[in-house]
Amino acid sequence: MKLFMLRTAVATPLRSIRRASFCSSTLKWEGGVSMVQGASRGIGFEFVRQLLEKNNKGHVIATCRNPDGATALLELKRKFEERLSILELDVTNENTIEASANFIRKRYGSLNLLINASGILSIPDVLQPETTLSKVQKSSLMYSFEINAVGPILVIKHMWPLLKLGGHSGAERDVAIVANLSARVGSIGDNHLGGWHSYRSSKAALNQLTKNISLEFARKKDPIICILLHPGTVETDLSRPFLRNVPKGKLFTTEFSVQKLLGIINNAKHNDNGKFFAWDGLEIRW
Amino acid sequence: MKLFMLRTAVATPLRSIRRASFCSSTLKWEGGVSMVQGASRGIGFEFVRQLLEKNNKGHVIATCRNPDGATALLELKRKFEERLSILELDVTNENTIEASANFIRKRYGSLNLLINASGILSIPDVLQPETTLSKVQKSSLMYSFEINAVGPILVIKHMWPLLKLGGHSGAERDVAIVANLSARVGSIGDNHLGGWHSYRSSKAALNQLTKNISLEFARKKDPIICILLHPGTVETDLSRPFLRNVPKGKLFTTEFSVQKLLGIINNAKHNDNGKFFAWDGLEIRW
Ligand SMILES: NC(=O)c1ccc[n+]([C@@H]2O[C@H](COP(=O)([O-])OP(=O)(O)OC[C@H]3O[C@@H](n4cnc5c(N)ncnc54)[C@H](OP(=O)(O)O)[C@@H]3O)[C@@H](O)[C@H]2O)c1
Ligand SMILES: NC(=O)c1ccc[n+]([C@@H]2O[C@H](COP(=O)([O-])OP(=O)(O)OC[C@H]3O[C@@H](n4cnc5c(N)ncnc54)[C@H](OP(=O)(O)O)[C@@H]3O)[C@@H](O)[C@H]2O)c1
Repeated sequence: MKLFMLRTAVATPLRSIRRASFCSSTLKWEGGVSMVQGASRGIGFEFVRQLLEKNNKGHVIATCRNPDGATALLELKRKFEERLSILELDVTNENTIEASANFIRKRYGSLNLLINASGILSIPDVLQPETTLSKVQKSSLMYSFEINAVGPILVIKHMWPLLKLGGHSGAERDVAIVANLSARVGSIGDNHLGGWHSYRSSKAALNQLTKNISLEFARKKDPIICILLHPGTVETDLSRPFLRNVPKGKLFTTEFSVQKLLGIINNAKHNDNGKFFAWDGLEIRW
Repeated sequence: MKLFMLRTAVATPLRSIRRASFCSSTLKWEGGVSMVQGASRGIGFEFVRQLLEKNNKGHVIATCRNPDGATALLELKRKFEERLSILELDVTNENTIEASANFIRKRYGSLNLLINASGILSIPDVLQPETTLSKVQKSSLMYSFEINAVGPILVIKHMWPLLKLGGHSGAERDVAIVANLSARVGSIGDNHLGGWHSYRSSKAALNQLTKNISLEFARKKDPIICILLHPGTVETDLSRPFLRNVPKGKLFTTEFSVQKLLGIINNAKHNDNGKFFAWDGLEIRW
């Protein structure tokens, strides 16, 4: 299989896709269209920030449940008025996913990178990571599965046609990338502690679904690579209540983690399709 | 760890638990209390049949959604009036799980074996195994997860105290066994084909949840072993619509498969806890 390169086409806006095929060698991956789903805060937000700040061009679509309240994104929007679009997307509401796909199709015509960063571990008064089977609630299992496993898959389903166009847009980087944020604790083989039933099982399901999709893309020779990423233990709202026992030096900033993850994304090769990588580039078993 | 033996205590009815501790060496595993959840037909029904027919004693609780319509079970009940109880249990309705646990506690006092056999792959007009991402429906993912992953876990949650008592009941076989029917296609590492998103992801989640529970039981030194079983490709209502490409000799009768699976269950050792076995006794990767 052809090696995957860092350079690729600008596929934005619609008209420039055609242009890209004439002068792709002067265009960089950084010039593509990236979507970060679950971008209001934490790791998702940091992806948006780095994609904008570290590249001179390229468009970023940041989606979140409540754009009006996404203060960090709105601040970034003031600096990157042209390059950043903020869209409403709640993974539990498929209409918002479809609407986002329609927006991207009309505005940019294709997608080169999709990062699914949304995820839940705990929600005060609603969902607590389980410490024992006796505390496992059906509602927690169902809700975690809906957001952590079903959500990202529905997003990929609706972005699929756009990703195909993005991957085909004729540049040196000949594929689009889908990166799903999973978690090492979703690994069954690596599970030595137990607990966190809802979170662990939803991430294991996400891993299986992502593997499934990667196989279909490969079989159809779609120019799309799907990978799963474990960001490390990163200080965010999600992890903060559970950081007591994390050794110093093992707790990452979002800045560090996302820099590492973008390195993996940028270097992803065809035979990385369907694999699960930690922030350090090492594969994680299932 | 102590080797797991084939012989164990009769723990039924409540009074005989005490008796068991006096004369356990004359009592066999076959004399214990077994629950088969999802027993109306297919593999679950065959477990009930073999547990009753191949043993001279022991009680079997067969649960199903609609006892009145479970003709095969009702027929068996005529033959094994004393040894078979048929209870209503729908894994989507936690009240029926609790009610079953209450019944078993009152009637038998403990449980030596729990087999979760219920599962769905397709339901006409409701759920079809997906052949492509573009056909993936949120409702199918959620429903499969609810029945295939959440259901068995809630059953274990409510039977846990009874299983502890069953494992402790002081016989040569010093543990209770929980066997969850999974499927090889639930393995992520073994997934080379894709498709069947709802079924595959729900079984991957079941695998993770079962692993989780096995770790808690081990940590607490509860006398319970949890295993996952792949029955092979077995001719049942579940598999029938998808058997076209199964080579001759690779399609098992329920009788053959269950005989093999009971062999695994009867020989399960402490260090099998949390593992995933195929009908032939070989471990399946995650
Ligand atoms: N932090 C870690 O140590 C760590 C470790 C392993 C894996 N991860 C994974 O990394 C990803 C990002 O986590 P994080 O630490 O950045 O978490 P975070 O700071 O809590 O952010 C979670 C994000 O998910 C969004 N979200 C929640 N429910 C949503 C829904 N229904 N629809 C759309 N978006 C939704 C949130 O949006 P709102 O602002 O609207 O709530 C927020 O933007 C998650 O998938 C997580 O499982 C994190
Ligand atoms: N057959 C195979 O080749 C194969 C291969 C791999 C794994 N498996 C697994 O083996 C297990 C048994 O499968 P099978 O082939 O025997 O299937 P089956 O003949 O279709 O029987 C499925 C059983 O699950 C029960 N069930 C469905 N929904 C339920 C619910 N909500 N609550 C309680 N019970 C429910 C059904 O009860 P009703 O009669 O009320 O519908 C029925 O007793 C399943 O977990 C399946 O995934 C089978």
